[in-house]
Amino acid sequence: MSLILLYTGNGKGKTTASLGLVVRAVGHGKSVSIIQFLKGNPKYGEIKGLSYLPGVEIIQSGSPNHVKKNKITNDDIKLAKKGLELALEKISSGKYDLVILDEINVAIYYDVLKLQDVLNILEKKHEKTTIILTGRYAPKEFYEIADMVSEVKEIKHHFQKGIIAQEGIEY
Amino acid sequence: MSLILLYTGNGKGKTTASLGLVVRAVGHGKSVSIIQFLKGNPKYGEIKGLSYLPGVEIIQSGSPNHVKKNKITNDDIKLAKKGLELALEKISSGKYDLVILDEINVAIYYDVLKLQDVLNILEKKHEKTTIILTGRYAPKEFYEIADMVSEVKEIKHHFQKGIIAQEGIEY
Repeated sequence: MSLILLYTGNGKGKTTASLGLVVRAVGHGKSVSIIQFLKGNPKYGEIKGLSYLPGVEIIQSGSPNHVKKNKITNDDIKLAKKGLELALEKISSGKYDLVILDEINVAIYYDVLKLQDVLNILEKKHEKTTIILTGRYAPKEFYEIADMVSEVKEIKHHFQKGIIAQEGIEY
Repeated sequence: MSLILLYTGNGKGKTTASLGLVVRAVGHGKSVSIIQFLKGNPKYGEIKGLSYLPGVEIIQSGSPNHVKKNKITNDDIKLAKKGLELALEKISSGKYDLVILDEINVAIYYDVLKLQDVLNILEKKHEKTTIILTGRYAPKEFYEIADMVSEVKEIKHHFQKGIIAQEGIEY
């Protein structure tokens, strides 16, 4: 069964929900590929954490610095395009049960990727491969093509109390 | 830093968001204990998936069958109480960086656990331990004590199209 799952909204828990599904998938012996757009920091906890799980690969296709909407560089665009080429390969190969395109919604919102280019590659997905799209600002077209859509809403965040990003929680 | 994080709402992605945080925490060498309330099926993907991760334990404190609100048995209550005793031990010991009380919100909503009993044990948490509470129907008291609250809203679900629960996705 091949599904498209969409996690969006402004709350905490979109990337982590997809990582939790990786844990489940691995428990059933499934193979997983994760491509992180706009992210390139090898110190993220998930990089090492996922390395313990058999059948899982994670590829970062962003710069190490946090990408900001009004400061997009040519490098950001080049890296994201490379990520999208990889995504096509992973999605269409039939080698993976689950492919996660992490923060791809934001990459489109930031104009680092073109929506139509992403829709085109999603059409080429293998019939055995489930795809997860994450990130706030998902385009309405993703709501339409997705089989499952969860919106994570921020009700309260410890950042509001001045608590900084915590190791193992935010990254 | 010790936080209380709450994942609630009717959408897909609450338990998995907490499992994703386990992956991150493990990547930073942290120790994790997970207690699943109302769940007792050892075939869940997360049981085997988490077994690959160092420093992580998961304890199911529910019956193998899915617990339904109007069909609570004495066994369900006994198992949940045992889970809560364990939770107190894990939360207060100072041995864990992260303790997840999975579906505890539902256990309270179903009257399998008393809200006040849970609030009492949360007060005893060690200063190094972050706690995650998951499940729909979180009581308003949890919204108050939590440092972070995410509500996952179901916009669309593949169940609505008649697609049954998928291995590696729903369990």
